[in-house]
Amino acid sequence: MTTHEMNLLDAHTAIYTDYYQLTMAQGYYISGRAKTNSCFDYFFRENPFSGGYTLFAGLSDVLELVEGYHFGEEDIGFLREQGFREEFLEFLRTFRFQGTIHSVREGEVVFPVEPILRVEGSIIEAQVIETLLLNLINFESLIATKASRIRTAAGNRRVVDFGLRRAQGLGGIHASKAAIIGGVDATSNVYTAFHHALVVSGTQAHSWVQSFGDELSAFRKYAEIYPDKCALLVDTYNTLKSGLPNAIIVAKELEQKGHRLLAIRLDSGDLAYLSKHARVKLDEAGLQYVRIVVSNQLDEHVIRSLLVEQEAPIDIFGVGTRLITGQSSSALDGVYKLSMSDGEPRLKFSENYTKLTLPGVKNVFRFTNGDGLFYADAITLVEEESPEMILHPLFPEQRSSLQECTSEPLLHKVMEEGRIIHKQSTKESAAYARERLSHLAPEHKRFEYPHIYKVGVSQALMHLRTTLVEDFKTKFKV
Amino acid sequence: MTTHEMNLLDAHTAIYTDYYQLTMAQGYYISGRAKTNSCFDYFFRENPFSGGYTLFAGLSDVLELVEGYHFGEEDIGFLREQGFREEFLEFLRTFRFQGTIHSVREGEVVFPVEPILRVEGSIIEAQVIETLLLNLINFESLIATKASRIRTAAGNRRVVDFGLRRAQGLGGIHASKAAIIGGVDATSNVYTAFHHALVVSGTQAHSWVQSFGDELSAFRKYAEIYPDKCALLVDTYNTLKSGLPNAIIVAKELEQKGHRLLAIRLDSGDLAYLSKHARVKLDEAGLQYVRIVVSNQLDEHVIRSLLVEQEAPIDIFGVGTRLITGQSSSALDGVYKLSMSDGEPRLKFSENYTKLTLPGVKNVFRFTNGDGLFYADAITLVEEESPEMILHPLFPEQRSSLQECTSEPLLHKVMEEGRIIHKQSTKESAAYARERLSHLAPEHKRFEYPHIYKVGVSQALMHLRTTLVEDFKTKFKV
Repeated sequence: MTTHEMNLLDAHTAIYTDYYQLTMAQGYYISGRAKTNSCFDYFFRENPFSGGYTLFAGLSDVLELVEGYHFGEEDIGFLREQGFREEFLEFLRTFRFQGTIHSVREGEVVFPVEPILRVEGSIIEAQVIETLLLNLINFESLIATKASRIRTAAGNRRVVDFGLRRAQGLGGIHASKAAIIGGVDATSNVYTAFHHALVVSGTQAHSWVQSFGDELSAFRKYAEIYPDKCALLVDTYNTLKSGLPNAIIVAKELEQKGHRLLAIRLDSGDLAYLSKHARVKLDEAGLQYVRIVVSNQLDEHVIRSLLVEQEAPIDIFGVGTRLITGQSSSALDGVYKLSMSDGEPRLKFSENYTKLTLPGVKNVFRFTNGDGLFYADAITLVEEESPEMILHPLFPEQRSSLQECTSEPLLHKVMEEGRIIHKQSTKESAAYARERLSHLAPEHKRFEYPHIYKVGVSQALMHLRTTLVEDFKTKFKV
Repeated sequence: MTTHEMNLLDAHTAIYTDYYQLTMAQGYYISGRAKTNSCFDYFFRENPFSGGYTLFAGLSDVLELVEGYHFGEEDIGFLREQGFREEFLEFLRTFRFQGTIHSVREGEVVFPVEPILRVEGSIIEAQVIETLLLNLINFESLIATKASRIRTAAGNRRVVDFGLRRAQGLGGIHASKAAIIGGVDATSNVYTAFHHALVVSGTQAHSWVQSFGDELSAFRKYAEIYPDKCALLVDTYNTLKSGLPNAIIVAKELEQKGHRLLAIRLDSGDLAYLSKHARVKLDEAGLQYVRIVVSNQLDEHVIRSLLVEQEAPIDIFGVGTRLITGQSSSALDGVYKLSMSDGEPRLKFSENYTKLTLPGVKNVFRFTNGDGLFYADAITLVEEESPEMILHPLFPEQRSSLQECTSEPLLHKVMEEGRIIHKQSTKESAAYARERLSHLAPEHKRFEYPHIYKVGVSQALMHLRTTLVEDFKTKFKV
């Protein structure tokens, strides 16, 4: 449960959408298809960052917005100006989402192709939530995945999100939350910490130091006001000649008053070189307990280089732009595709076979081997039991037996008739992600050429798809 | 003026910030510096996309948030839980931003190093707005710049923003607006179109076609409901064998009823090949007026290749992910640095000379040559007149005379004592950007190795900085 409900869209949830959702909705309504049943799948085609997995996030925000989805009078007025018809606007006035959603848990480790979330309802209600669902899940999953990679690189060291100022606008609100789900310990983002009851972190900027004219006075004043929460930024003028010696003076003064300096922070220059020098000087002064925080253009690769190659004695990483924007992947390529309508399985054909969709209402099972590691995922038709064998979705001759594994269903009902029936707090999602990632073999987590996780389809699903594809081929003579 | 005021932060504007802004604010308050005057500059160090210029956006959103900046009781309660002191919380209860802001106009063409925006006020008020200012200006300027590059590549062809589903969460709200400022014609984002009175655009998705089972019925039904607003998505099954022939049938049926098919849309496959084939087939059918829309992973480079190298007969571009996330630059690197405090000019020294800040309260002048093209910008101290010569900020021996040019001040007062005194609508900013970009020589707009625009400093400012740097060098013996 979030501590405070957010109302970010200022009650205009329903128009946080692409225009074509509404032109199609009116089309369905006018053509008498308002009640046609349908099923849509959310899935993506590639893991971001050329990685071996994706961490699923964004579900709780989506459910909250979908549960409250409605058109206000201002929204309807705007649509009237666009030429929408009165009978349809009247329909929208009382419109609510009353469908059912199955989803993997927020924080689940997921893989390309598999349907992670399934929406069932009338074609209008399932259609109009597409944009907000894609917007939030694509983005939060991207950032949660990035954060988990940074966590992997940082090991047990503390990682703090400093990204809000470089976030993609208000995207920072959700990014800071997703970063926590992915394994970051705390955030500088007060807004998100407030709404999700997270640990908030931060001390001072260069402006604090500059405003005093003289660095030692600035440090002393900060230590006087925050004697037990004092971390000093030491690079405003010259790290080794000014910042560090002044920090040591203040640390010793704090000791005399029965307090301890928490940390120094390095925000520029060669972080490996400076952290090593600083560690030596701090230790020589008997300040073994003072921790070293670094920041400045960090990501999983820089952190790994600092720790593994450079053996830099760093305790805490402040990570900004590259975490909060998910650099170097600007987006997760998640899509939302119709798989059933009017009781019939539907397919999007494609000249590109890798873009063929999987028809029908489906489930996903996860298989764990005897070592407790995730072995494979199986996509099945919803009426099937957990299968004993899966086929490669593109090369069905490639088969894998699952008989040695234990199986669990991945999709759970999270919304029924438009009401949320399972809520999970950000902290719970973070704990779930940590637990689930512990079952993912290291070869799927490595940054370079990770091992591809097995995702297959059941024989029944493959048979359905082949039949539909053959029908199309006959029809179009391709 | 926006049509509708947005209340995106749900009245929690003041905590849309980094935590250290508040710990510093309390520090200033407790150390008796609450009223200390100060000046901060916003500037960036590099143009995004390795480009030759940046388009400034985000100002109107920042001013709206700063004018309404206040701490609510819930915010104060949260800060109390974090250990903030009662006297400071009492101070926050009535706190408002009452400073003055000078800025270039939204839509201005700007360059690295120059102070684009200047905040003057007490150090607390100027400090606490840093994060929201950086967040919105960095992001909106990034997207406006990206959009202007896409506009350059597309020439006079129509460009529509389709990005919301792949935006970085709610960042999409501001990105769609910034895209319009940068030169995009319309957006699919209903929310942003509603709030900024923009042209909204969109027709149907694959799900519309799939839901009918048969493509021709889907096209016919859409044309029946929207006879004068009909664009057909032709790649659900097979573009050339099914989508295009069906679209031509429907176009001829529309003609018989006195209507005209607007367009077909290609969303996959080889867009150059398919658009050429489609054009030929449409023309053979006497449908010269039917336009061709393309989408799918477009950006300025792909558009230029399609139009210039491939000579593809495309009329409209739908641009998504790469526009709305500003790929390949995840952020504009804008910063907010203290330049004056307590009446004294302030400097952030740096071991890296390119990161030295410019001290003092400053102005910017723009110089235009006899051809009406922007020639150079000059950064001066605020008390100076427009200079006749500028020095290179790093190599002061490099000087440029400005005597042949006409000069204009770039910074305008936009907020005084906390009240907005100049508002500009999104449409006005878009028009301003178009006009200003017409004065920028093509060599600054090209994508590969653009010519670097001249930004220099006045002799008086250089003298001030040199004096402060020498003081530091003496002090730290560096």
